[in-house]
Amino acid sequence: MSLKIYFGPGSVALAGLIALEEANAEFEPVRVVLAEGEQRKPEFLALNKRGQVPVLIADGQVIAENIAVLTYIANRFPDAKLLPLGDPAKLARAYELLSWFATNVHIAIAQIARSERFSDNADVQAGLKESGKVRLKGVLAEFDRAASGTWLLGEDFSVVDPLAFVAWRWAERFEIDLTPHRAWAALVDRIKARPSFVRATAIESGLVTRAA
Amino acid sequence: MSLKIYFGPGSVALAGLIALEEANAEFEPVRVVLAEGEQRKPEFLALNKRGQVPVLIADGQVIAENIAVLTYIANRFPDAKLLPLGDPAKLARAYELLSWFATNVHIAIAQIARSERFSDNADVQAGLKESGKVRLKGVLAEFDRAASGTWLLGEDFSVVDPLAFVAWRWAERFEIDLTPHRAWAALVDRIKARPSFVRATAIESGLVTRAA
Repeated sequence: MSLKIYFGPGSVALAGLIALEEANAEFEPVRVVLAEGEQRKPEFLALNKRGQVPVLIADGQVIAENIAVLTYIANRFPDAKLLPLGDPAKLARAYELLSWFATNVHIAIAQIARSERFSDNADVQAGLKESGKVRLKGVLAEFDRAASGTWLLGEDFSVVDPLAFVAWRWAERFEIDLTPHRAWAALVDRIKARPSFVRATAIESGLVTRAA
Repeated sequence: MSLKIYFGPGSVALAGLIALEEANAEFEPVRVVLAEGEQRKPEFLALNKRGQVPVLIADGQVIAENIAVLTYIANRFPDAKLLPLGDPAKLARAYELLSWFATNVHIAIAQIARSERFSDNADVQAGLKESGKVRLKGVLAEFDRAASGTWLLGEDFSVVDPLAFVAWRWAERFEIDLTPHRAWAALVDRIKARPSFVRATAIESGLVTRAA
């Protein structure tokens, strides 16, 4: 079995790195520096023509889309219990959060940072950036409601939890006041305390180039 | 066990109706007429404050987001084999398509039909409607590539397939020329021939008010 994951520092792909570390998987991480446009180079577009990370290569199969990457890791390594695979109701809650993140949180971020995806018109892009920040503030409050338990799904850590850190980091980058978000902040602290987080962020920063 | 599904005629929620019919599930369908703004009434917003269908109520648990609703149905009725639950690679492909649909196809539709989600500014909304049609045409070609087999995942029908019909219907509504899309058209014909499609669309149209 071979696993290679293409990730961009600062992106949602960190969730896949954390999931692989939680599973103690052997994998090769490949850094795609989004700030330098590496996701638009022909080599990367040949893997994912949408130019988005993460991309996971699992035994030769190219898997794009964060939700699919996390689904693969959780199902490939069931002993790590990264999704509640035996519980339809709880699993639905996991995908509700994953989908909400992709279609609301991430779309608001895209409005701000990737407005060219929505329109070629500069005025429309400027308007989207502006309204994206308002939209982002609106959706972020949901993290506090979702973070009422130890983890987003309750008792057990899952692949959904890293997204709470990813969103937190984005909100910091866009200078959103995070002081009102007490429950979410506490969840972020719990995520940061996990060994998988420490190892994944070391890979993300380029300090470590191979998983253990 | 009790199942109630809130759907909007013409929306992506049809996929959930088809999935429930494929599983021969007993369920209560509730029609939310989007064209009349019923999704913004207080009763519905109390279930899903984003005012979006589908919403599935499964033994009292409120499940929003299409991906989560389909995940629940496939896992609650495993004998119907609506997702390749035992095959991590194929399951990842299923979620790749589900996620692509939510974040690309559906977002393009939202740009056209729900531009107020992105901005309050009328000029920005007009620009988004325009570019949404261009974006929609661009993403729709992927259905032909994805439809090279009998079904989107290959040999077996899955909850992903109804989305090919949902997108086809949207494209027709927005008067996109569909004649070049031969493989996709053939897939849509195969979907329409399934008894689950006939029953689900009868419910959707209001001709039938209870599942059998």
